[in-house]
Amino acid sequence: MFELRANEKVMALDPAALPGDAHIVFIGRIRSPWRERSECPKNMRAALETGQRASLMLDPPYREGLLGLEGYTHAHIFTWLHQVPRNLIIQKPRHATEEQGTFALRSPIRPNPVGLHTARLLGVDQQTGVIELEAIDALDGTPVIDIKPYFPSVDLLADAMTPKGR
Amino acid sequence: MFELRANEKVMALDPAALPGDAHIVFIGRIRSPWRERSECPKNMRAALETGQRASLMLDPPYREGLLGLEGYTHAHIFTWLHQVPRNLIIQKPRHATEEQGTFALRSPIRPNPVGLHTARLLGVDQQTGVIELEAIDALDGTPVIDIKPYFPSVDLLADAMTPKGR
Repeated sequence: MFELRANEKVMALDPAALPGDAHIVFIGRIRSPWRERSECPKNMRAALETGQRASLMLDPPYREGLLGLEGYTHAHIFTWLHQVPRNLIIQKPRHATEEQGTFALRSPIRPNPVGLHTARLLGVDQQTGVIELEAIDALDGTPVIDIKPYFPSVDLLADAMTPKGR
Repeated sequence: MFELRANEKVMALDPAALPGDAHIVFIGRIRSPWRERSECPKNMRAALETGQRASLMLDPPYREGLLGLEGYTHAHIFTWLHQVPRNLIIQKPRHATEEQGTFALRSPIRPNPVGLHTARLLGVDQQTGVIELEAIDALDGTPVIDIKPYFPSVDLLADAMTPKGR
């Protein structure tokens, strides 16, 4: 399913096979229209362009933690991209002209496959644990590991720049 | 060290005691001037105001993954805030007038204590694994779990708003 492309490189060590330094608990799941990797938008901008909404279903023990989130317009959703390899350190995305290091990419393939999805909140229901999202670039069923409110004071970096062509 | 304040609430289940659904590997460490929680800035804005620089030391197996990161001005640094409790679901920060759910706060205390620090990159050295940062709101020695480039196209949300007073 994941083929190594030209110039891509795997590490000698595979984080998936290491004992682990800490453990993650899944606190909920993403509900999205995307059932296959081939149809899943590659980033939040592409997800928004589909016009398809999504939601997050938080498990019962964690629902009280939503108190106050309804006052924010956007949140960072953190997911665990559990179906990807973790040992690729140089990658050549299909759209890219040159290979890049994993930490210069937003690819789901990384030593700790944490996904960061910053989404507009359309509704927060503490009773049912459902957060309605404008869109998301994650497969249906993707485990959720954290939710943080978006604070423009620390998250909106007006002078941030990317290299030419990216 | 962590006292429960009035109106704060712990969950019946403690994520720290659960078997875990996935494992994290530490890929490096933060080097910062902050040795004690009492002196550590509470957010990136406060960290910048100190004028104190910081750095990230990436472990050898992961250093090739920095290829191309030098072209970006800012990156999201993900840490594991390993010294905090994980079972607090309603919190009353010292500065706040009302208690909030954990997911409406950027507090380090959360079911999965993933820290998100978006910092300006002052230097990226693939050979030594050192990333120089303008500042960081994390204790010296904090484990690093991921690094992603900041993409204004998905990370800069010009219309994001917070509730009045926050």
